[in-house]
Amino acid sequence: MTTSKLQVAFQGEIGAYSEEAALALYPEAETRPFPSFEAVFAAVEMGSVNRAVLPIENSLFGSVHQNYDLLREHNLRIVGEVQLRIKHQLLSLEGSRLDLITHVFSHPQALGQCQRFLKERLPNAEIVPSYDTAGAAKKISVMGQKTHAAIASRAAAVEYGLFTLASDIESNQENYTRFLALSSHELEAPEGSESRITPDSGNAEVEIKTSLLYAQKENLPGGLFKSLAVFALRDIDLYKIESRPLIGSPGKYIFYLDLRGHQDDEKVKNALHHLQEIAAFVKVLGSYKSGRFIS
Amino acid sequence: MTTSKLQVAFQGEIGAYSEEAALALYPEAETRPFPSFEAVFAAVEMGSVNRAVLPIENSLFGSVHQNYDLLREHNLRIVGEVQLRIKHQLLSLEGSRLDLITHVFSHPQALGQCQRFLKERLPNAEIVPSYDTAGAAKKISVMGQKTHAAIASRAAAVEYGLFTLASDIESNQENYTRFLALSSHELEAPEGSESRITPDSGNAEVEIKTSLLYAQKENLPGGLFKSLAVFALRDIDLYKIESRPLIGSPGKYIFYLDLRGHQDDEKVKNALHHLQEIAAFVKVLGSYKSGRFIS
Repeated sequence: MTTSKLQVAFQGEIGAYSEEAALALYPEAETRPFPSFEAVFAAVEMGSVNRAVLPIENSLFGSVHQNYDLLREHNLRIVGEVQLRIKHQLLSLEGSRLDLITHVFSHPQALGQCQRFLKERLPNAEIVPSYDTAGAAKKISVMGQKTHAAIASRAAAVEYGLFTLASDIESNQENYTRFLALSSHELEAPEGSESRITPDSGNAEVEIKTSLLYAQKENLPGGLFKSLAVFALRDIDLYKIESRPLIGSPGKYIFYLDLRGHQDDEKVKNALHHLQEIAAFVKVLGSYKSGRFIS
Repeated sequence: MTTSKLQVAFQGEIGAYSEEAALALYPEAETRPFPSFEAVFAAVEMGSVNRAVLPIENSLFGSVHQNYDLLREHNLRIVGEVQLRIKHQLLSLEGSRLDLITHVFSHPQALGQCQRFLKERLPNAEIVPSYDTAGAAKKISVMGQKTHAAIASRAAAVEYGLFTLASDIESNQENYTRFLALSSHELEAPEGSESRITPDSGNAEVEIKTSLLYAQKENLPGGLFKSLAVFALRDIDLYKIESRPLIGSPGKYIFYLDLRGHQDDEKVKNALHHLQEIAAFVKVLGSYKSGRFIS
């Protein structure tokens, strides 16, 4: 690497929502786009970047199981988290106006989320699906026509020198995506906070989360209940529990679990030890500062 | 309704995967497309259709929270389930061949899932994103050019009179979507099975599932653990547990739970009664026959 800036990988085109999340967590970083989640994991593992920022769940569309699978297969550590409100902007060239727009380009999901706006404000515009939101913004900038607009992020507007004709045009305001920051190794102190954090998460100012995956032993009666007892018996709060059936293995599940506390806290260590007694496998993915909501 | 056939609503264009799921559950039915999930719920409520078939979770992309929200807000009943393997077909006109194809149309998600095939077999084809897979198939049929192909379902091939140039071209073979059948009222007997089923789900031949939503009472210590004890203490197996944070209400969660058994089984009734004691709200969504995997 020729620069001393932190290098952060994300999946997608420059100006993607993932890049916005990366910059929310690491404002000073240099962001680097990769074509797939696999490529992002490989880049962190090979040391060609210092961090990755990837979506892990969306408030409308659920958990990104692909990234949970990659976390299971690889040995990266979760070191940070941010929750980004997905806000869509209608972007065009300087000097364009809403009443000039005849064509709107974007990813089908973004177009769907802005359906109401499009129907009310641009009922005659032609809707053109694109591969991704940032790619649509890039296209508008290259085409150079004031009659054409894209629906994309604020970051895409900056990247491709576009102007915002209408802001926050999505109908559902509760569209959040949770992103995780990954590193090749555990960090000494959690990132993404101004205040200093100790492993003891009793500190009321900041909350530390630990994420883990586990699978129950086969034929363990009441296995899920017993695995949660491990935490309940020690008054450890849970932020997330999700079962995921293993395709092709009826009756077998993987569990995603986020708990309050650091993996080095005494009671968390004890709980994880206890969990190992009753689980077929346990994989701790990392301890990190609970992410801010960015809107 | 002018026909005596069962009318089944789905979201999307004719030939969508949701229609394939509807026909897997109800082979004799007449399927009817609607533009949005909301419109599908409204059609069942108003009695303009008898059933709806909607996606509820995907093995790669997680739970469809939008449909869980609609199940919470409306009073439809889940009456059936099917798990459909999402298989993508490369479709074109009669007389076309793989080596003639210069353009491939589909939804970005399907294009992404067939990336490996496209790279290896059609490295020079132009990739054109579309609003949905069935719409892409329709477009190919209307355009009438043997150089153009769509990636879509088998149902779309039938609907738009297209021919399959290559079958099952997705790289990930573990792409399943779970669909639910909804009705405006509880049915006397579970659907989707040849064998007769009684409320007592002890029958080894068929498994009956019950789905429910609940929220914990605020400030109930160990609330999740206690809510699962309700089932564990009665030896009721769980198929799915998922927590979903309520946006804007930190620390508050909704839980999705699927259990083994019928809501009219004695021990399930007792468990639900017990759950009501400790939950802020409980909503039983229906009891239905556990869905077959269709591939």
